[in-house]
Amino acid sequence: MKNQTLFFKNKPRIVSGMSIVGKKEGDGPLGKYFDHISDDPKFGEKTFEKGECKMFLKAITGAVDKAKLNNEDLDLLLAGDLLNQLISSSYVARTLSVPYLGLYSACSTMTEALTIGANFINDGHFKLVACATGSHFATAERQYRYPLEYGCQRPPYSQWTVTAAGCTLLSLKGEGPAITHATIGKVVDFGINDLNNMGAAMATAAADTIYSVFNDTNYDERDFDAIFTGDLGRLGAEILRDLCREKGLELGQKYSDCGEMMYKREQNCYCGGSGAGASASVLNSFILGKMQAGEYKKVLLLATGALMSPTSSYQGETIPSISHGIIL
Amino acid sequence: MKNQTLFFKNKPRIVSGMSIVGKKEGDGPLGKYFDHISDDPKFGEKTFEKGECKMFLKAITGAVDKAKLNNEDLDLLLAGDLLNQLISSSYVARTLSVPYLGLYSACSTMTEALTIGANFINDGHFKLVACATGSHFATAERQYRYPLEYGCQRPPYSQWTVTAAGCTLLSLKGEGPAITHATIGKVVDFGINDLNNMGAAMATAAADTIYSVFNDTNYDERDFDAIFTGDLGRLGAEILRDLCREKGLELGQKYSDCGEMMYKREQNCYCGGSGAGASASVLNSFILGKMQAGEYKKVLLLATGALMSPTSSYQGETIPSISHGIIL
Repeated sequence: MKNQTLFFKNKPRIVSGMSIVGKKEGDGPLGKYFDHISDDPKFGEKTFEKGECKMFLKAITGAVDKAKLNNEDLDLLLAGDLLNQLISSSYVARTLSVPYLGLYSACSTMTEALTIGANFINDGHFKLVACATGSHFATAERQYRYPLEYGCQRPPYSQWTVTAAGCTLLSLKGEGPAITHATIGKVVDFGINDLNNMGAAMATAAADTIYSVFNDTNYDERDFDAIFTGDLGRLGAEILRDLCREKGLELGQKYSDCGEMMYKREQNCYCGGSGAGASASVLNSFILGKMQAGEYKKVLLLATGALMSPTSSYQGETIPSISHGIIL
Repeated sequence: MKNQTLFFKNKPRIVSGMSIVGKKEGDGPLGKYFDHISDDPKFGEKTFEKGECKMFLKAITGAVDKAKLNNEDLDLLLAGDLLNQLISSSYVARTLSVPYLGLYSACSTMTEALTIGANFINDGHFKLVACATGSHFATAERQYRYPLEYGCQRPPYSQWTVTAAGCTLLSLKGEGPAITHATIGKVVDFGINDLNNMGAAMATAAADTIYSVFNDTNYDERDFDAIFTGDLGRLGAEILRDLCREKGLELGQKYSDCGEMMYKREQNCYCGGSGAGASASVLNSFILGKMQAGEYKKVLLLATGALMSPTSSYQGETIPSISHGIIL
């Protein structure tokens, strides 16, 4: 088996993290952990897309402010989002006017950004790198599924795209949690073609990457205080537990899914949240907070992405998925 | 001015390059340089999208074959394309089953991939990395502009999306041309909102990155045997010459644009080719050939990307652009 894992010997550190979410996410169980909750889904802009862009920008500038730095201190922005042509990321990069690399691995983009960012920081090429991603219920819904006005019914295993953005600043300086390893995922396909059942499609990708992490690092589940996936949702998380169990791996209480954690049952989000903003906002609030407080010492985060498009689905394709993992 | 340029001291080398193009591109002035010309725009598949995917895969497996290696030798695939959610790249990554990072900077994706790939190779993290991108006239046209059947009239400054894919394999081994530097571009915006005039929008990004390359490396135009931009087209290339001239920089005969080189005037492609496949196919055929033959010793390649989407354009946004440069 090939080594898919990078080891960062210089320990790139998280300088600061910022999370911005919408009202529904703020009303959920993690509400008290987020930095900012917006009651306005358009964030004061005319369209949902421009609102998403503003949320995204606020996550980055908020992380910079928290670190008591200026936007001009950023050497590089690594970002991606769920909109076609990554418009949220690109327009934010235009506003910030910093070197920018656009990334896309759907809802696994946050850990892709952290992988590439940690590598650049580890090498000493750059001093301060921002890794950011986000998603927005209204923009994703109308791009990937149906017009909002249509009021489409959802099956019980569907998930709800979170309105959230998160940004992590990386540097060699400071005392923040370090990224020690990153595992680059392979694209796997469970043969699922139901766009409402992405959690099931992505569970195999998460399982594949967990095996790779453990194989490449010689760590196992006992070495971690907590293991998180991005947005498998309730059903996907159960499937992941089953897949791991088949290989003799019991994830147990240590394991949670950021999407599943996002909403209360009575919020009618069925299997929980999905979207690139899920892992990004939970990492930069709940997880980072617990690490800074010393409650978690070692965490494995596996963001998970479904790589289909409406076009590929119309043409009869199944859903390919990927998961990139990082060890904090 | 901030340093945007990475220097690769271990000299990641191009092991092999592969270029695949469509019939129109094969009929153009560069026809004899391409590795493979397909008469069938669907590459034997049922849809243009599936055809693009097959072309993309063929570019990668072709590069691997040329290097007398196997697909299993690949440690990482860095790829992106112009289709929403990067479906060509993602489905190819599924077929190859190698670790994969999806990248998007529109038509500047090839040099983004080479930047990240050269960095991973330079660090010794991976032994063999494939960097690939492509574009397809029929899929891009119907996604970004109008249905093909509509037969939309084009203004004289419009460009034609090339049907082409290119793949470059990078390694520390061998005697191929080395990537010595990579300059990560910033997003700039010339205020252009005409989707047929992307060359003009991207010219400012190319100019911005050329200044950064020269500023960061202390090289100037005299140090290079040739300078290429990705897909500015005839008009964009003229604008770039003018922008450089204003700063006292005379690009002269050394400078060419991959998109402009792609078609003969009588092929009715107006200002020339565009698309992520333009720089990818020209790099892996014409440029690589001239370097291997010793005609070029030092080359600057600046792929250029326009980062708008149909949605951002409908919402009144102008076209933000980016250009990432590499020195071979």
